[in-house]
Amino acid sequence: MSKNLHVAIVGATGAVGIEMMRTLEKRKFPLGKLTLLASARSAGKRLPFLGGEVEVQELTEHSFKGIDVALFSAGGSISKNFAPFATQAGAVVVDNSSAFRMDADVPLVVPEVNGADVQGNRGIIANPNCTTAITLMALWPLHQAFGVTRVFASSYQAVSGTGAQAIEELEKQTREWAKSERKWDDVRLGGEHVRVYPHQIAFNALPHVDSFLESGYTKEEMKMENEGRKIMHHPSFRASVTCVRVPVFRAHSVAVSAEFAKPVTVAAAREVLGRAPGLDLVDDPTLKKYPLALDVAGKDHCAVGRIRQDCAFDNGLSFWVAGDQLLKGAALNAVQIAELL
Amino acid sequence: MSKNLHVAIVGATGAVGIEMMRTLEKRKFPLGKLTLLASARSAGKRLPFLGGEVEVQELTEHSFKGIDVALFSAGGSISKNFAPFATQAGAVVVDNSSAFRMDADVPLVVPEVNGADVQGNRGIIANPNCTTAITLMALWPLHQAFGVTRVFASSYQAVSGTGAQAIEELEKQTREWAKSERKWDDVRLGGEHVRVYPHQIAFNALPHVDSFLESGYTKEEMKMENEGRKIMHHPSFRASVTCVRVPVFRAHSVAVSAEFAKPVTVAAAREVLGRAPGLDLVDDPTLKKYPLALDVAGKDHCAVGRIRQDCAFDNGLSFWVAGDQLLKGAALNAVQIAELL
Repeated sequence: MSKNLHVAIVGATGAVGIEMMRTLEKRKFPLGKLTLLASARSAGKRLPFLGGEVEVQELTEHSFKGIDVALFSAGGSISKNFAPFATQAGAVVVDNSSAFRMDADVPLVVPEVNGADVQGNRGIIANPNCTTAITLMALWPLHQAFGVTRVFASSYQAVSGTGAQAIEELEKQTREWAKSERKWDDVRLGGEHVRVYPHQIAFNALPHVDSFLESGYTKEEMKMENEGRKIMHHPSFRASVTCVRVPVFRAHSVAVSAEFAKPVTVAAAREVLGRAPGLDLVDDPTLKKYPLALDVAGKDHCAVGRIRQDCAFDNGLSFWVAGDQLLKGAALNAVQIAELL
Repeated sequence: MSKNLHVAIVGATGAVGIEMMRTLEKRKFPLGKLTLLASARSAGKRLPFLGGEVEVQELTEHSFKGIDVALFSAGGSISKNFAPFATQAGAVVVDNSSAFRMDADVPLVVPEVNGADVQGNRGIIANPNCTTAITLMALWPLHQAFGVTRVFASSYQAVSGTGAQAIEELEKQTREWAKSERKWDDVRLGGEHVRVYPHQIAFNALPHVDSFLESGYTKEEMKMENEGRKIMHHPSFRASVTCVRVPVFRAHSVAVSAEFAKPVTVAAAREVLGRAPGLDLVDDPTLKKYPLALDVAGKDHCAVGRIRQDCAFDNGLSFWVAGDQLLKGAALNAVQIAELL
């Protein structure tokens, strides 16, 4: 595809859809035409793009005629239902949901890790889980150098990962508490303010992201191992993860302890991470420099820091990685995949 | 000491000092007299206690005459400087700072774990680090049953651990953002709002608690291993921890992956944890029940849940433990130690 492409965004009015538009603008994507698709409720809205406006159209099975690339970010069931119409019409689907990620004939791609895998696609390419993608930005270069065997990780996930309604929920809960004259030890809000998450997210930490499996892990927690194995082509990779939602708006942070097969040192790890694509090394604790959710928000690059010899592995590292959930965790990675086509 | 005790609180006006008073009230401590001590700046303040008021006196080297038990919570340097005067005057010091914790002749005590260690005291008993104490409430019973070898843990620590000024900082930053009409993607405040922590805490996650060591770990992170070894009498215990401050007011949460020497199952762990003192088993994910910072705030008991067979250890468990930082993490534990005397 050397011509300029006709791109569709499915779920254009969502938090990720909006960032997909911004990312297409910023990266000077070779765009011939942009079609915005969403539910009937949003059809007719006009969204700003490249100085003009594009009108949102209702998503139907006939929406994909002439589309080269369809970026889906409207949830798993929309992807399941409509991706087949897109591929039948000749479009390549880049899907941000988890619907196809583990399908054997669907490449699951972080361009900096396994960009070459897009070659094998049969019309659908999956965008990985946000926490997994952000973690792999640091873990993959370390794996190439030292051979990762397993990780223990805990996430500090922003509400943007749940979508626009969750962003609004944290915003509303916070404003509701602030506008009352209540004190710091009286922050619990009434149940009418708790809709998207099962519990209040403001001033809380929820160890519950995605649904629970029989094992007691959540689906989200197992994505690190399952998707990590597929993306890194590393079938014996093990990952024990606790995924936690925190009152942060748009960037995820992850604390990682990783064990390696080859001897690893902090100096060698810094050298490897310092030249990794799409990743900034922010690691000078004496100057109070380490990756922060607020600093990576809105940035394409992820950041890694707090690199130290792990004291509970005989050969391991601990580190802290942060990335914008809407960008590297979703929209940016999807557009990068489209650029590989 | 079978008579009613004359208790002094050093640092009475601080966040922990206030909770020490509340805890003495709630637990019907055999109190003969209460003396409140603080800096000259706070002297003369009258604080409510048991329906009356107690006036705060200036802390001096002569403050401890007739005192039986002195609960210190005014920072390490105050403890270093004034604990000797207290012990010389015949008081037993229960110290909430880290000043004496690792001294060989100072017992470091979580009453539910090693209450018997208070017997060996020579006038000073140390109260452990908050994150360590809360984690041990769940880890110790598991260790007794299955023999813990090492843990990987990440904390979600409330601002109350830093004290009253930090509580005020999160409160002010949050209200400052809320009163402006700024949106969710515009939450960064000016530097004038950032005083206590090196970076904005509202809507952020700071992987920086206490000061950094040469190794890249923080002092706080190493307390789990160092204090854990001493409290559990387990010199080979290993702990790799990432301590993170989150925008939560008063309860800490900790994600733990623990490896054991003896075979462990989730059912056996639940049975052990279900009868552990001071700990509530809150573990029914299908009903969305797991420990939450907001739920344990103000409670004496810690809570444990999300118990699952760890998928990256051959014989391990993952779990999530939460506790009130000001209570089990500080004031309650100190008063419990005093009760053992």
